[in-house]
Amino acid sequence: MLDALFRPRSVAVIGASTRRLTIGYQIIQNLLEFGFTGTIYPVNPKAPAIRSIHAHPSILDVPDEVDLAHIIVKNTMVPDIIAECGTKGVKVAIVNTSGFSEVGGEGIALEQEIVRVARANRVRLFGPNCQGIINTDPEIRAYCNFTFTRPTEGSISVIAQSGGVAEVINNRLYELGAGLRMYASNGNACDVSIPEIIAYWGDDPGTRVIVCHVESLSDPAEFLRVASMVARRKPVLGLKTGRTRAGARAVSSHTGGLMKEDTTTEIIFREAGVVSFSDQASMCEAAYALASQPAPAGRRVGVMTNAGGPGIISTDEIIGAGCEIPELGEATQAALRAVLFDEAIVTNPVDVLATGTPEQFGATVRMLLEDDGLDAVLVNFITPFFVDCKGVAREIVAAAPGAAKPVVVVVMTRKESWTRTLRILREGGVPVFDLPEQGARALGAMVRDRTLRDRPHDRPAEPSISGGTAAAAIIDRTLARGRTYLPQVRAYELLEAYGLRTPKAAEAGDLEECLEAATAIGYPVVLKVERDDVVHKSDSGGIVLGLGDEDALSRAWTEMRTRFQQPDTRFLVAASIDHDGPEVMMGAKREAGLGHVVAFGLGGVFVEVLGDVAFGIAPLSESQARDLITGVKGFPLLSGARGRAAVDISRLADALCRLGRLVTDNPRITELDLNPVFAFPAGRDPIVVDARIRVSGD
Amino acid sequence: MLDALFRPRSVAVIGASTRRLTIGYQIIQNLLEFGFTGTIYPVNPKAPAIRSIHAHPSILDVPDEVDLAHIIVKNTMVPDIIAECGTKGVKVAIVNTSGFSEVGGEGIALEQEIVRVARANRVRLFGPNCQGIINTDPEIRAYCNFTFTRPTEGSISVIAQSGGVAEVINNRLYELGAGLRMYASNGNACDVSIPEIIAYWGDDPGTRVIVCHVESLSDPAEFLRVASMVARRKPVLGLKTGRTRAGARAVSSHTGGLMKEDTTTEIIFREAGVVSFSDQASMCEAAYALASQPAPAGRRVGVMTNAGGPGIISTDEIIGAGCEIPELGEATQAALRAVLFDEAIVTNPVDVLATGTPEQFGATVRMLLEDDGLDAVLVNFITPFFVDCKGVAREIVAAAPGAAKPVVVVVMTRKESWTRTLRILREGGVPVFDLPEQGARALGAMVRDRTLRDRPHDRPAEPSISGGTAAAAIIDRTLARGRTYLPQVRAYELLEAYGLRTPKAAEAGDLEECLEAATAIGYPVVLKVERDDVVHKSDSGGIVLGLGDEDALSRAWTEMRTRFQQPDTRFLVAASIDHDGPEVMMGAKREAGLGHVVAFGLGGVFVEVLGDVAFGIAPLSESQARDLITGVKGFPLLSGARGRAAVDISRLADALCRLGRLVTDNPRITELDLNPVFAFPAGRDPIVVDARIRVSGD
Repeated sequence: MLDALFRPRSVAVIGASTRRLTIGYQIIQNLLEFGFTGTIYPVNPKAPAIRSIHAHPSILDVPDEVDLAHIIVKNTMVPDIIAECGTKGVKVAIVNTSGFSEVGGEGIALEQEIVRVARANRVRLFGPNCQGIINTDPEIRAYCNFTFTRPTEGSISVIAQSGGVAEVINNRLYELGAGLRMYASNGNACDVSIPEIIAYWGDDPGTRVIVCHVESLSDPAEFLRVASMVARRKPVLGLKTGRTRAGARAVSSHTGGLMKEDTTTEIIFREAGVVSFSDQASMCEAAYALASQPAPAGRRVGVMTNAGGPGIISTDEIIGAGCEIPELGEATQAALRAVLFDEAIVTNPVDVLATGTPEQFGATVRMLLEDDGLDAVLVNFITPFFVDCKGVAREIVAAAPGAAKPVVVVVMTRKESWTRTLRILREGGVPVFDLPEQGARALGAMVRDRTLRDRPHDRPAEPSISGGTAAAAIIDRTLARGRTYLPQVRAYELLEAYGLRTPKAAEAGDLEECLEAATAIGYPVVLKVERDDVVHKSDSGGIVLGLGDEDALSRAWTEMRTRFQQPDTRFLVAASIDHDGPEVMMGAKREAGLGHVVAFGLGGVFVEVLGDVAFGIAPLSESQARDLITGVKGFPLLSGARGRAAVDISRLADALCRLGRLVTDNPRITELDLNPVFAFPAGRDPIVVDARIRVSGD
Repeated sequence: MLDALFRPRSVAVIGASTRRLTIGYQIIQNLLEFGFTGTIYPVNPKAPAIRSIHAHPSILDVPDEVDLAHIIVKNTMVPDIIAECGTKGVKVAIVNTSGFSEVGGEGIALEQEIVRVARANRVRLFGPNCQGIINTDPEIRAYCNFTFTRPTEGSISVIAQSGGVAEVINNRLYELGAGLRMYASNGNACDVSIPEIIAYWGDDPGTRVIVCHVESLSDPAEFLRVASMVARRKPVLGLKTGRTRAGARAVSSHTGGLMKEDTTTEIIFREAGVVSFSDQASMCEAAYALASQPAPAGRRVGVMTNAGGPGIISTDEIIGAGCEIPELGEATQAALRAVLFDEAIVTNPVDVLATGTPEQFGATVRMLLEDDGLDAVLVNFITPFFVDCKGVAREIVAAAPGAAKPVVVVVMTRKESWTRTLRILREGGVPVFDLPEQGARALGAMVRDRTLRDRPHDRPAEPSISGGTAAAAIIDRTLARGRTYLPQVRAYELLEAYGLRTPKAAEAGDLEECLEAATAIGYPVVLKVERDDVVHKSDSGGIVLGLGDEDALSRAWTEMRTRFQQPDTRFLVAASIDHDGPEVMMGAKREAGLGHVVAFGLGGVFVEVLGDVAFGIAPLSESQARDLITGVKGFPLLSGARGRAAVDISRLADALCRLGRLVTDNPRITELDLNPVFAFPAGRDPIVVDARIRVSGD
């Protein structure tokens, strides 16, 4: 379906204009300038021709089939024009006109109207309030876009909601010398969506790398589904913006409060296998390298340089980017020693010296590519006036292509003076950067991409039928009583239905009931106040631990009763859990359009002072759950740091999977905090000590 | 003295050559090409002239005074040539020749030899194994450097040890459109040092910003002294490289182990007020902005844009760089509303829309500059084809200069198509960047620079005469007995001599002595094993706490004695300290050439799992000590987070100052760990519970 958008045989421009510097003129100009291989049909009620092309008064007058129509008329006229497009059989309309949902108010209604008309008339819409598309495929050469920043032909496809960001990315790729395949900036995206375009490019053999910019995901679940599928086949790079806009949200749970504005996008990117970036330059540099080089099999980088300082900077950045600079094998070192100058350094990074010859460059690149201990090669090259720099460039190009490992080249030079050297490298198909930092970051991104692609894709646990039935009944009952939080004993029951362990417990009102409950449970017990309006029980004196006998329990109850005098106050009596290992926090929060986000962190200061929390999307697979657990900074405390016993990570991961299943099966759970959860050494399941579960009928 | 180096009236080139692509030819070529205002004297035993300039067979034959001589002869001939330079009265020699300390072995001796000869002959040396210097001052135009990357004239001076890095910085500044004042790449730096050059540029009225790259500081104390002085007057930017080379060092103390390879440079930069960077591009961008713009008075940035997406990216990056994007005042909003289009956004970031006119740009820049709630302005400008972009550039330039606040402009465009627009901005004196991220980071660096300059410069505590006398006696006694660690009671005494509080304690051998000591101290007591070879006492059963009476102490002693059966084992009996607040760690480590680095962190997981430690250089002032305390991530735990009582920060800072004084007065202390130190609420001094102090006679 998107062929009509990206590979149109004919393009009508409705609202074409004879006046320069108007969108209706510029699009025709751009199509001509870029060498569009199809037919252009200007539509203008008065002008006989635009840019020497015969114009028609209406789309209905166009004599041939029209794949794609630009609509540039006044916003209120757009619905009628779309209807005409339908009559004509136009497949896709790019609505460049603005004045829709982005202006609010009546614009929102008008946008709903054009969607309705388009659906009724079987026209797909791109936009409104958008730039358009570009396809550099020589068979097509479609420049259906009003800004004109001529791209070079290549294999990177770019989609961005923001026209400004799309332009910046397009310009940046051009300046790097990276070629573009397709480009789409779809503004309000009322119909053709970003996931739809990503899926299309996933199937486009000419697209090697997809770059996307998202401001907000209108259908996060669909983005996740599509991007996951495509990212297994080719690199998908994503820019997150709007990271800091929000500040803290007013939420009642830890899990919600810990999630910042951008967290969801970040989680979706990671789960989908999208390599995420927070700045445009790094993303473009990574795309440039990925577009021409094979994926590295691992993270071991061989570095060569002809200047010491840049070699050190490369080392810093490569390690900072999560890669390694391993020692070279003895054979490689000996071979290097045989060809390089005596003073050259044959350990990693290899320094061929400023006087290094073209042959030495070529031999070094080849030897590093052949070393089994390396997965990628970074070449740092300053251009000394006394060296044959063009020769160096030719040797690098001769050594690199066809290799199964990526080669990235950094040329540190005055560009305007060494254009031929740079051109030899560029035309030789190696990515060329100005700064060691850029080359190293690009390699780091290639490794991240490969790691995401190679990670296990195990399936999450299946829905639990019996658990779901029990849970549904508990939630029904809670909602029926007009409550939004599950009473603690019900929360425990719900968790137990999913195989999560909780202490023996009972709810009680007066002292007599408490004492009865304690006898049934067995001393020592814990007494907790049971009120929805008490969020932090321990801060408000709503918990007393370690009550060893009836006397202790009686005293504790009496004291607590004076603190919480409301007649409807109830109490929880629960078994004391003997525990001296780490405490953890598990949580979940429902996110519109996505399902539930699951959170994991260590107890206490780690979560509350350091914000050290990892997130994933429910349901979780075993490996995803493990990633969350190992992903927190405090993980060493679970794995036996400081002489402590290591926690049973498998059982902790299993509990997280059960939690993920629980919320997925029960979408009426909006927020869930298990805090603390006691973790235990090998062979023992974690126990949920406090559970706060919020439900909603929606 | 460095005037002869940077402002020479005459330059001799000893080893001048008639052959192109040699250093001896290229330097003369570069001086001519750059329009050197002084006289060039080629020195060559055979050639009559080089590049049409009469050559002399020896420096001694030059008829006039020579300020500066390049030496490019074979390394072994350099000493004699330097001697001749001395005879001739040459003031400074740039030794471009390599083959000195950088190659090790005999090269080291040869370097020592040239230093000796130079001192004897009153010649200053620059290099050896170096590029040289550049001075763009129109009065001088000295290009005493063999690579040729023509700089534009400007106010940024660059010093780098690595020639490669110096070149990269030089090229980067050029590509940004930033002008250079002076440049120095002094290779092995055997005589004229980086601090000496920084001091010289501190006094150079043409230098507004100093950029330095250090691989290793040969005299860190001197660098600290000079950079501190200069950085109070003008921005000094520093690039740290070699951050990841080392990995862990084999050290016996926490403090040493926690300090990574680059920590010292980072600490020195911060203490000196040098704005530190880890990548070359960001440093050059910051220099570019600082060279033309006034310092911001605070961190509040007003952002304007004509495209939404880039506005969001700016917001992210500005906040990420530690700045704020405050709401605009009502008056500013109203004024903006009066001049901008209806759909424009008049909150911060202000969006004038893609259709924004030159007049609207100008008015918005002016209004943001006039808003008292803002300290700096960032302009984001995409160049729509339907807008008069040159007009926009002219309006920005007209609004910005002369303002007391910095203005940074980001132009997102296809550079080759909009050269005139870019030129108007550049020539108008505003810094112009390609990407919102760059502009935001540059503003962030300007704020960091201002913050460093504005921080309090209070003086550290004076030396303690009585404390020093007592400490010296304790250290003497320890060393006299052949020990390297102070016995705990001696360590306590030493700390007490500097006013640091410790528990009452006594050393004892057999049980009887222990019991006597405990009676004198008063129960409850703590029993600790006292052996230098037991580093982690608690892990090896070498500590028993809370011994309430003689029985308990006897049992503990007997058990411990079976664990540590060596006949020379001694014990410490110390008063139990009642404490339930936070524990902290204080430490110090002697660093060659610098004095002592002081470390501060929270106890336990913060230091050992998270590496959350702050460092400073002793002696510390009150404000420096406070910076260390507030600088750790776990600081909220000291200031009353999670419902705990806040710690007395003044007394903690006071203790850190005393510790800094103690190690400074006693340079024989090589490592010192106070861990744990118990911190208390307001009005109570911290108490050092365990002190490990290592001393050395060196």
